[in-house]
Amino acid sequence: MIKNTKVNAAILIIGNEILSGRTQDTNTGTIALWLNSIGVKVKEVRVIPDIEEIIIDTVNELRVENDYIFTTGGIGPTHDDITAESISKAFKIDYEIHIEAFKILEAYYKPGEFNEGRQKMVWMPKNAKLILNPTSGAPGFNVENVFCLPGVPSILKSMIGGLTNQIVGGDPILSHTISLRTVESEIAKSLADVQKEYNDVEIGSYPFFQAGKLGVSIVIRSEDESKIKKTTDKILEFVNKKKIQVVDR
Amino acid sequence: MIKNTKVNAAILIIGNEILSGRTQDTNTGTIALWLNSIGVKVKEVRVIPDIEEIIIDTVNELRVENDYIFTTGGIGPTHDDITAESISKAFKIDYEIHIEAFKILEAYYKPGEFNEGRQKMVWMPKNAKLILNPTSGAPGFNVENVFCLPGVPSILKSMIGGLTNQIVGGDPILSHTISLRTVESEIAKSLADVQKEYNDVEIGSYPFFQAGKLGVSIVIRSEDESKIKKTTDKILEFVNKKKIQVVDR
Repeated sequence: MIKNTKVNAAILIIGNEILSGRTQDTNTGTIALWLNSIGVKVKEVRVIPDIEEIIIDTVNELRVENDYIFTTGGIGPTHDDITAESISKAFKIDYEIHIEAFKILEAYYKPGEFNEGRQKMVWMPKNAKLILNPTSGAPGFNVENVFCLPGVPSILKSMIGGLTNQIVGGDPILSHTISLRTVESEIAKSLADVQKEYNDVEIGSYPFFQAGKLGVSIVIRSEDESKIKKTTDKILEFVNKKKIQVVDR
Repeated sequence: MIKNTKVNAAILIIGNEILSGRTQDTNTGTIALWLNSIGVKVKEVRVIPDIEEIIIDTVNELRVENDYIFTTGGIGPTHDDITAESISKAFKIDYEIHIEAFKILEAYYKPGEFNEGRQKMVWMPKNAKLILNPTSGAPGFNVENVFCLPGVPSILKSMIGGLTNQIVGGDPILSHTISLRTVESEIAKSLADVQKEYNDVEIGSYPFFQAGKLGVSIVIRSEDESKIKKTTDKILEFVNKKKIQVVDR
């Protein structure tokens, strides 16, 4: 397996309920953390409504710009579940009953329970590769570099582990956090100098408020552990010089 | 004030920490619920990294496609806070010290505390309109239809209320939820028929799992209360016929 150093992905959250504010998306975090651990960096997330032409256009835009796309939502049995049909159209592939998925769900449900509503969930792009669902039976699917997962967070979580072997990542993205008892403006200049010196390391600064006290977390990210180490040392150098309390490192 | 019936917005979340999965975005929900209440519908959300050219390109794409854009993140004092400079470049406006913002922060901090780091927060696109910050002093800003807010959720929440008068919305988007003790596949066909009949109302179906029991929430959204009422009645008609328990309506 040849590893590229940089492998990118986009996450596409499909669902009016996120855009309306009714539902809080948590799938982005779940997918991003899993992808980081296998060396894939999330470059972009989009949340779009359940509208066919928007899904088609967005998938076709993102799938050429990224090594992988992960979609969430819209693969259930109701009328607003239009991801599978939209993906078929995006790839200009027939949308039809997937025999393997049909067999899985026929075996999953009690006799008589595999009704018309549920049978909608086996309609997929022709020859799609299934993503098995250990929680609730109905599989997700994969066409080329597009992986379609459900919107329900617990079901999605149970499915991504089984996908790990199908994703060819680069070097895992490592991160190290230094938490300081300070405010951003106290360290802004010194931190910018370190970023300038180590410009291929990603340094983020995030204020926090915990147990009644203000602080700043500095997050250093890179595929290269030695660079993270060097950057950390450089930051701790000015932190010590400024006599800033280190909460956690 | 002339009201359009449909007013759209995009939300642009700027920040590596969301893409890496380190931080869970909650600003989308906060902004979306507030916008709904003043008649603005969120059409799209994007999460992008702290990279200048990506911010510029995305802002320039979204600001012509939407009535409003709301950005979050990247307006603090550190090197990774590049939203104000990027917005200046997107609009080809000078990036400079904003006198009014300078005066606000000079008065906000104790003598001697308005240091170089903090002064970065008063650099903005020339003539930007300020968005006042009752929590931590440093204002957001507005250029044309682009409104730039901070990433820290509690600060953002304290700032959007003051913006309400600056946004011209359409009719408020109303929603009604019916919660049923059923599974989606049992109601999928009937619900699709109702959606076909009332095709200008948005009907969403969302399974839930609460207190050990499965259920489905049906969410009906429209600007027109009478349409919501008619759609609700039509749904309850088949729900009663199927003898499905109504948990909440």
